[in-house]
Amino acid sequence: MNENLTKELGIQTQNFRALIEQYCLFESVAAQNRMMPETANWVEKLLKDTGFETRQIEVDGAPNYVYGYLKGRGDFTLLLYNHYDVQPEAPIELWESPPFEATERDGLLIARGICDNKAELIARICAIQAITAANGKLPINIKWIIEGEEEIGSQHFDALTRAHGDLLKADGTLWEGGGFNEKGQAALALGFRGMLYVEYSVELMKQDAHSGNAHMLPSAAWRLLKAVSSIKDESGKILIPGFYDDVRLPTEAEKQAMRDNVDLEMEEKYRAMYGIESFLNNKSGYELKMAVFEPTANIAGFLSGYVEAGVKTVLPAKAMAKMDFRLVPEQDPDDIFEKLKSHLKSQGFEDVQVKKLGGGDPVVTPIEGAFAQRMQKICKDFTGQEPEINPLVGGTLPLLGAMKKNVGILGLSTSGNPSYYGSGAHAPNEHIRLSDIPRAIQFNAFMFTELGNA
Amino acid sequence: MNENLTKELGIQTQNFRALIEQYCLFESVAAQNRMMPETANWVEKLLKDTGFETRQIEVDGAPNYVYGYLKGRGDFTLLLYNHYDVQPEAPIELWESPPFEATERDGLLIARGICDNKAELIARICAIQAITAANGKLPINIKWIIEGEEEIGSQHFDALTRAHGDLLKADGTLWEGGGFNEKGQAALALGFRGMLYVEYSVELMKQDAHSGNAHMLPSAAWRLLKAVSSIKDESGKILIPGFYDDVRLPTEAEKQAMRDNVDLEMEEKYRAMYGIESFLNNKSGYELKMAVFEPTANIAGFLSGYVEAGVKTVLPAKAMAKMDFRLVPEQDPDDIFEKLKSHLKSQGFEDVQVKKLGGGDPVVTPIEGAFAQRMQKICKDFTGQEPEINPLVGGTLPLLGAMKKNVGILGLSTSGNPSYYGSGAHAPNEHIRLSDIPRAIQFNAFMFTELGNA
Repeated sequence: MNENLTKELGIQTQNFRALIEQYCLFESVAAQNRMMPETANWVEKLLKDTGFETRQIEVDGAPNYVYGYLKGRGDFTLLLYNHYDVQPEAPIELWESPPFEATERDGLLIARGICDNKAELIARICAIQAITAANGKLPINIKWIIEGEEEIGSQHFDALTRAHGDLLKADGTLWEGGGFNEKGQAALALGFRGMLYVEYSVELMKQDAHSGNAHMLPSAAWRLLKAVSSIKDESGKILIPGFYDDVRLPTEAEKQAMRDNVDLEMEEKYRAMYGIESFLNNKSGYELKMAVFEPTANIAGFLSGYVEAGVKTVLPAKAMAKMDFRLVPEQDPDDIFEKLKSHLKSQGFEDVQVKKLGGGDPVVTPIEGAFAQRMQKICKDFTGQEPEINPLVGGTLPLLGAMKKNVGILGLSTSGNPSYYGSGAHAPNEHIRLSDIPRAIQFNAFMFTELGNA
Repeated sequence: MNENLTKELGIQTQNFRALIEQYCLFESVAAQNRMMPETANWVEKLLKDTGFETRQIEVDGAPNYVYGYLKGRGDFTLLLYNHYDVQPEAPIELWESPPFEATERDGLLIARGICDNKAELIARICAIQAITAANGKLPINIKWIIEGEEEIGSQHFDALTRAHGDLLKADGTLWEGGGFNEKGQAALALGFRGMLYVEYSVELMKQDAHSGNAHMLPSAAWRLLKAVSSIKDESGKILIPGFYDDVRLPTEAEKQAMRDNVDLEMEEKYRAMYGIESFLNNKSGYELKMAVFEPTANIAGFLSGYVEAGVKTVLPAKAMAKMDFRLVPEQDPDDIFEKLKSHLKSQGFEDVQVKKLGGGDPVVTPIEGAFAQRMQKICKDFTGQEPEINPLVGGTLPLLGAMKKNVGILGLSTSGNPSYYGSGAHAPNEHIRLSDIPRAIQFNAFMFTELGNA
């Protein structure tokens, strides 16, 4: 990098802090539709101030999409994706500082949404501002799409891409997420699991009853408990007929990448972080890495009856549960939803309502693809090490299915986010490490520059 | 009744309304330790103003007991029992008026705790004041014990009765509860089920995780769901080994009373009230009446993860559930608690914590007893009909075990409370019917007078 750029990167590292503090103040909780227009306006202005042509795209029922285009010197067009919405801050009592005030403590910067994924947008902005200040125009063109409902399943990305697919066509695409691993390797995430998110509800009476009537009145709590229980056995196997029909086995290249990623020190750090003695089913090493190819059924929430302090002898009229299924290639969320409904019906749980709240296809970019290969080289050149290649990560980007189907675009995630394994996305006290910020900005600047060297 | 008493009863029917409105203002939620001393002081003053010698009895860890003694003209001593505490008002959003402001609507008087059992205390007070005003002294002596932790299991009644048993000895004892049935029969409740109330908790990680990790991290929600599920099968049978060992079969007298109590119109009213098509396991008539002799395991509450609106993809670190077992003669709550713990252990649920929050023995007064026979006659004389005799009701009076063991006292409940089948004890919008108030006061006055005619 030239001296000017180095100097500008230093300036931007200072600028990062002011920007992220402003950005985190926006309580952009999509699940609760809080401050969405205000956040979109702030993000659009930030892009405009950075030199982008900007607009907000309206899609019925969705928070506005922020779109930006920055014309550079070269022919290569890179599409960036981020989201400005965040997960709810609940349970609030576990936060050690106000969730929407970025708070520094012990070398960490703590706020809801900072790692997932407000800091990445700011790191990208800072890198672009540094290059622009140092060198004038960027060597590449950048398209940027920033949505406001990733955390509730990107439900309108299908409509967006059907109406505005041309705006999103590019030579390479970078999704959100991904930092450096603890060995200093840049990380490439090539595949994401799919998801089906459902809410179950049971209402068996018009009102709660005294539990002294439990010998004669139906229990919504028991009913839902038995219904949910029927979905998975003790070993973790999902019992919905046909659930595993479309699961494809991992390829040899995927297996090899997983073998290369085994990191027992990292396992130890994860165990310490969660305070667990062992991972699920005692897995470790390669076996643990490969577990991501197994779909899951997670209980994200369960509520019935009296859950405050002390004793209340109530027979609850209602019960509710939320569940996310993480799906692997080539499972289809709509198909799984139908199979789930059939399963409940066939087990006699007609009185259990099930509603789909979100979904997303599993989407995988082949390791052998041109952009994936090019990014591997950039990662290696930046760090001096081979990157960590993750063929399938546990999480979901629900927009990927729509991008693949409607725009013909795959993509990948890499190390532009100053996050690390302990950042606690979706959890209380979500944070980034202050020490990770300079590298994230530098990596983005290096990557944008290198992609211009066709 | 003489003319003076009739007049005084009319005056007291007016007085009832002012007193119950004041009494309901006290948010005496024992589970949350709210306003307990204030409520005890108010109740003590009410007894004192009615002519009782009063005191508050302190027992370590319990809200104060209010005790009163009223010396009458005769030799017969009646012990009255009430409690000044109430159930929590949650879920608050289902109340149509403020829970602690007695509100009149459509002929009802609505407030938390009004039926269970603040109205009964006031009805008894009004009856005593009427007799005193009309005739001077009562023909009987009255001892009155009023506790502040019935709704959390009367946990210190054992200590109270061991220390102060002599204060409670009496020739006949009336517990709380019981109105007239819809046919106008006075009701006698001779037996109450026992209870074991437990709280389960599971904590498998130090913090919540992103649910994209569900293939490798343990789920507290699933763990507790499977543990609770192991306690009961689909048919309602409780699967804890030895659970049914001490269940005694109903006697012929108990069966006959249940046969006499069958009331299909009443069943229809209950079904309408709860909005159900049929009772549990489609039972009706005698079979439904006899179901109370089967012990139950009720889920009073279940909480894990995210239970607010919308989507949150979280893998919860913790889960919690509350359960009450209703026990029948001769089951013992301590014995059942040990068996429950053994069951969880033998099923491999060592990581599920279980804590006893309350308990009570099942206690039954024989139909043939002298006081029970006398009360049957009083009920018949008041109404002109045979009373409804209930040998075992679904609810629990946790103090009964201590009274039986430490004071040698059994007792029964009868129609002194202006409540009815739809009063909604423990539920939102708990209420009494205004039209039931005069009869409740008259019945109490009649009963106190008749018990003096030895």
